[in-house]
Amino acid sequence: MKTICDMTIEEYTKKVSGFHGHEAPGLIIGGFMVDLAMKNLPAGEFFDVICETSTCLPDAIQLLTPCTIGNGWLKIFDAGKFAVVFYNKETGEGVRVFLDIEKLKSYNEIYAWFMKLKKKSEQDKPLLLNEIRSAGDNILSYSKVNVSESFLGKKSKGQTGVCPICGEAYPVKDGDKCIGCQGSMPY
Amino acid sequence: MKTICDMTIEEYTKKVSGFHGHEAPGLIIGGFMVDLAMKNLPAGEFFDVICETSTCLPDAIQLLTPCTIGNGWLKIFDAGKFAVVFYNKETGEGVRVFLDIEKLKSYNEIYAWFMKLKKKSEQDKPLLLNEIRSAGDNILSYSKVNVSESFLGKKSKGQTGVCPICGEAYPVKDGDKCIGCQGSMPY
Repeated sequence: MKTICDMTIEEYTKKVSGFHGHEAPGLIIGGFMVDLAMKNLPAGEFFDVICETSTCLPDAIQLLTPCTIGNGWLKIFDAGKFAVVFYNKETGEGVRVFLDIEKLKSYNEIYAWFMKLKKKSEQDKPLLLNEIRSAGDNILSYSKVNVSESFLGKKSKGQTGVCPICGEAYPVKDGDKCIGCQGSMPY
Repeated sequence: MKTICDMTIEEYTKKVSGFHGHEAPGLIIGGFMVDLAMKNLPAGEFFDVICETSTCLPDAIQLLTPCTIGNGWLKIFDAGKFAVVFYNKETGEGVRVFLDIEKLKSYNEIYAWFMKLKKKSEQDKPLLLNEIRSAGDNILSYSKVNVSESFLGKKSKGQTGVCPICGEAYPVKDGDKCIGCQGSMPY
């Protein structure tokens, strides 16, 4: 029976619905991606994660690993690609798991959904989810990667100051006023 | 008795430790911020959230609301400011809750921690957490905001193509190859 990080697919799906709000196809694939990455991690107890899209996939990582956005062990580099990098935060050695388009071609409904070939109203969601569950990690590939040294290590955020305009605390490195008072916020 | 979104502080703290890995001070303050925002939300069933820092606070939002990074209802604008905006995604009307430096001055240990006036080794974590629990929302302020119209509404990610270099799917709007093959990834 297929499992996702020692859970049945049903158990994992329940967790997904509770956190993400619904059984998103991308999050089920994401579960298999995290599972595959964990099985191929380089030696060492600690790892960080880079997620290459902000859509769906980050939630699979947050549900299945200790890495979250708020604790900083998960970082998003939004290249719009359905891929994750798990890496040793000391050495940079890691594994990158990605959705493999060539393998995906054997699964019509997943392929059409992922490549946006059908409008949402034309998609057959039960069929899509069935294909995803039955494909498991057969639509994934992985490779070893080395995360660059300049990216590793804890970055200090530097000194905290008080913005002379709004009176709130902000990182002094951002300039003589906070980014909000520089006009970059959408409100 | 103080509560955070209908949980006792102890119940919330347990959730925090399970998700975030430890009882981070910023996440306890974040709980009170989410609670205050929810109590002052404009009418309407649906809201989105903007978080103005990537540190700690996003996890409080993900734990206490339906908004997550992966489902897109939580967005991070990292201005390095400890503030959240909850807003109606149709009208843009919202409330912004922030840590109020003036109010914080009555709480020595929180102030020293937040303004980074003490090294980690000099901090008294039990005292800090006690001050945070006892302060509750007394260190917070809020104001009404209007999120700009251009920011509202669902942005389409556009067409998906196959990158001629790596052979993976990517958003065509990024150019004639994916951002990874343009050399922007840290591996």
